[in-house]
Amino acid sequence: MAKSKLRIIPLGGLNEIGKNMMLLEYENDIIIIDAGLMFPEEEMMGVDLVIPDISYLIERRQKIRGMVITHGHEDHIGALPYLLPQLNCPVYCTKLTHGLISVKLKEHKALAKADLRILTPGVKIALGKFRVELFPVCHSIPDSAGIIVHTPLGVVVHSGDFKIDYTPVNSNPTDFSRLAQLGSEGVLLLMTDSTYAELPGYTPSESVVGDALERIMSDAPGRVIITTFSSLVSRIQQVIDTAARYNRRVFVVGRNMNEIVRISLELGYLKAPAGILGRIDEMKNLPDNRIVLVTTGSQGEPTSALVRIANKDHKQVHIMKGDTVIISASPIPGNESLVARTIDNLLKQGAEVLYDRITPVHVHGHASQEELKLIMNIVKPKYFMPIHGEYRHLYIHGKLAQTVGIPKENIFIMEDGDILQIDKRSARVDGRVSSGHVYVDGMSVGDIGATVLRDRQALAEDGIVIVIVAVNKQTGRLLNKPDIMSKGFVDSQGYQEMLENSRDVVAEALKHRSDSPSDPGYLNNKIRDTLERYYYEQTKRHPMILPFVVRV
Amino acid sequence: MAKSKLRIIPLGGLNEIGKNMMLLEYENDIIIIDAGLMFPEEEMMGVDLVIPDISYLIERRQKIRGMVITHGHEDHIGALPYLLPQLNCPVYCTKLTHGLISVKLKEHKALAKADLRILTPGVKIALGKFRVELFPVCHSIPDSAGIIVHTPLGVVVHSGDFKIDYTPVNSNPTDFSRLAQLGSEGVLLLMTDSTYAELPGYTPSESVVGDALERIMSDAPGRVIITTFSSLVSRIQQVIDTAARYNRRVFVVGRNMNEIVRISLELGYLKAPAGILGRIDEMKNLPDNRIVLVTTGSQGEPTSALVRIANKDHKQVHIMKGDTVIISASPIPGNESLVARTIDNLLKQGAEVLYDRITPVHVHGHASQEELKLIMNIVKPKYFMPIHGEYRHLYIHGKLAQTVGIPKENIFIMEDGDILQIDKRSARVDGRVSSGHVYVDGMSVGDIGATVLRDRQALAEDGIVIVIVAVNKQTGRLLNKPDIMSKGFVDSQGYQEMLENSRDVVAEALKHRSDSPSDPGYLNNKIRDTLERYYYEQTKRHPMILPFVVRV
Repeated sequence: MAKSKLRIIPLGGLNEIGKNMMLLEYENDIIIIDAGLMFPEEEMMGVDLVIPDISYLIERRQKIRGMVITHGHEDHIGALPYLLPQLNCPVYCTKLTHGLISVKLKEHKALAKADLRILTPGVKIALGKFRVELFPVCHSIPDSAGIIVHTPLGVVVHSGDFKIDYTPVNSNPTDFSRLAQLGSEGVLLLMTDSTYAELPGYTPSESVVGDALERIMSDAPGRVIITTFSSLVSRIQQVIDTAARYNRRVFVVGRNMNEIVRISLELGYLKAPAGILGRIDEMKNLPDNRIVLVTTGSQGEPTSALVRIANKDHKQVHIMKGDTVIISASPIPGNESLVARTIDNLLKQGAEVLYDRITPVHVHGHASQEELKLIMNIVKPKYFMPIHGEYRHLYIHGKLAQTVGIPKENIFIMEDGDILQIDKRSARVDGRVSSGHVYVDGMSVGDIGATVLRDRQALAEDGIVIVIVAVNKQTGRLLNKPDIMSKGFVDSQGYQEMLENSRDVVAEALKHRSDSPSDPGYLNNKIRDTLERYYYEQTKRHPMILPFVVRV
Repeated sequence: MAKSKLRIIPLGGLNEIGKNMMLLEYENDIIIIDAGLMFPEEEMMGVDLVIPDISYLIERRQKIRGMVITHGHEDHIGALPYLLPQLNCPVYCTKLTHGLISVKLKEHKALAKADLRILTPGVKIALGKFRVELFPVCHSIPDSAGIIVHTPLGVVVHSGDFKIDYTPVNSNPTDFSRLAQLGSEGVLLLMTDSTYAELPGYTPSESVVGDALERIMSDAPGRVIITTFSSLVSRIQQVIDTAARYNRRVFVVGRNMNEIVRISLELGYLKAPAGILGRIDEMKNLPDNRIVLVTTGSQGEPTSALVRIANKDHKQVHIMKGDTVIISASPIPGNESLVARTIDNLLKQGAEVLYDRITPVHVHGHASQEELKLIMNIVKPKYFMPIHGEYRHLYIHGKLAQTVGIPKENIFIMEDGDILQIDKRSARVDGRVSSGHVYVDGMSVGDIGATVLRDRQALAEDGIVIVIVAVNKQTGRLLNKPDIMSKGFVDSQGYQEMLENSRDVVAEALKHRSDSPSDPGYLNNKIRDTLERYYYEQTKRHPMILPFVVRV
């Protein structure tokens, strides 16, 4: 057993931000950290969600002792409804995370069979040869945790998503003393959140936003409408606290926002003075300057409450002169133009709009460079692996680790699927497991492959033309002029003549050839070649051409 | 004639950034400022370019006295090859802009018929009742100009795209004295670039980048590879100057970059000491630390030189350890992830990569808030119209104008197509002309309408299913089992059984119905309804369903 190795394998979150998942394996035991999803990128057409490839875990199902979740964001829990039924292991997490996972599994009808357990920070549990405990960290959702894994080879510390906040709102500060204690005893490996490793300095405290809210609510002549991530409970708490001071009542709009407010109140993560939260129909009895609305839509999501309000498409809320709208969030990469359009539409209707480019109405939840260095100084790990980031974030984080004295050869910049093998003497990256994107589209998981996506891209680019040719099944001769239908190719009015001509072009090309039963693809290829050339000449476009030969 | 009005109509650039174009109309005279294009947004599937709608101008062709172009960027000149043949008027611009437009028109075989004229800043020309002169401004391309239009009702000043730079590189500073002179004589209307109106303070000088280049070239152990906008000639000048000081030769890679370097050298906008520019095949004879490469690809464009280098797909240039790559540009909104991927791929191959988030290797070319206020203070206009921006930029710019004392009622926040009507006494926004997006796809201009785009979006989302049903043309009865083809819908292997079953589902649905000649759409609708329901049940997807009935 002296030769036993600890294997650390990231299955998500190291090639991109999102879809976080990793596993630790030692002899016959595997534990999993997080099971997140990612929203599809532009070129993944029609895909709803992206989750990690867990084929490595499926093959070793009997070794899995449990899953530990750091916090309740989608990129850490979103894949659970899809993966948990396949892995079927206990899931450990803090109380609020437990509540959020329960709601999610319930929606997917996967709660009854799930084994969810609350793990209080500081409490150690044994999962096979591993002992695991959580420690509190600050992040943009309450009850976030980092993970300490005691392995036979030493202690592994996983930061989860975190920032350092000495004046957090409704949350415990990151637990330095536990980390310092571990640091003085010796830590084998530290894995830390790299999302903001490009940013110098310190990330501002959540309290900074409170000052801005204070000023805005005192000055606003009418209603204040604020949108933020629905999971950013500390932000909602600050809104409620400030509203209370300015004698305003708070109305929550949007399904997700109402849901998380309900759970957070129930579990004690949100505190609201009696009578401050109102039902939306009570709003009409209040003067405008006593109203605060908290809505979904901080990312410009087309069906969210704020976007419907901005588009004059919301049943109960309409923008009026004197409204002040606060976008208390920054756009996630890819959502910039949706958010920008929402701001423009609100301004056009006469609202004042405050957003992070012009007012400090948001701070984010990830550590900047000085915080990352601080953690490394406290934990003093032998080995270091930057996690949660795209390659350049991990790379820069690795450079930071060198500046605080971790030797270059002890820093591992990995990609998803890489295996970090650690034994008593050394550590190295060796071997790979299957990893990557599994696409969820509609109810199916994983069947969207390269072909379907490539077809969707081609269809989106220049549309499709369908050609139907009827031939006599004895003679193989054309029975009548081919039929042509197109979708997404050209305007069928303006190009009626060209489309009509293209029927003759096909007929002409097939005139002296007969359908050859010895080569069933012959006609199809002939039609495709002929039309590709013709349409490109006429339009410089390349529609997908789909011939169909009916033999009658 | 006392009642004659000056009409100012923006046709592009006020609903979004890009596609700039506006017109000034007085009695029987129209002049046009700029004719830009915009690159399509995500949802404009398959569209290559977007240009302004000029139907208002087409109807008044005989009134057009000329077009004046502020500078040679695509969003100011890119629509010329499409619009100039329709408008057929003289085009006035500075020398470098003239050179760039010539190249562009030549590519589109539209140069021979064009009437391009160089207009030197400070020289006045008469265009109908208007007299027009250019004044130099600083921007991220040399020879940029603002426009002064002397109208019968007063002077109109148009800033073009500009920033204030007291230490520009290879360019004249913005001409304050001419503006101050006009300001003291009285300016009717000022129209100013709002692109960066959200940013407080001053935009840094182009020279700032020189300091960073200096440090990087002196420290770099091997080759320096730098990418920037090919039109950013001042940046290329700084690269050449710094390279010369560090005894490095400069190699230009990429078609666009070579083209603009050639024109700029020819016209004297770029100065290179003899022997510093090399042909790429001479590179192999030089030690790495004597090489600088200047490449296209600053926006992560998939076919650009830098992206091919990053993907190990470039014939002549391969990344090696010791290379330093500088991304001397910031990503244009929408290109963030392309640029990020390029950086990641370069890092993975061992290059050091410097980009604007981590090193000051780029400054942009638009004025920030203090510069905007300065211009208003110098010009002291009666009326003010913010231009070049999305609504929130214009809105904020309007607020800035109020802070420097322009009365709110004299500030016009307009949208494309709005008409600003000015007479001797007053000004107001009144009426609208046709304006908006004209899509260019392949060689056709304007035929891509809402239907084609909607179809492309639907196709991209869940693909298409084509159903071919052969019926007897006498009896209307089904001849055989329907045929089904799908593209971009499901993986045809994994779903073979479902696709096969769906043929039976259609056959079953049509079993007791016959094709009704009195209602030719009946069969189509029946097929569509049946399959929509069936596929949604099976997959939760909504492919486009295209039935086709062959009557034989």
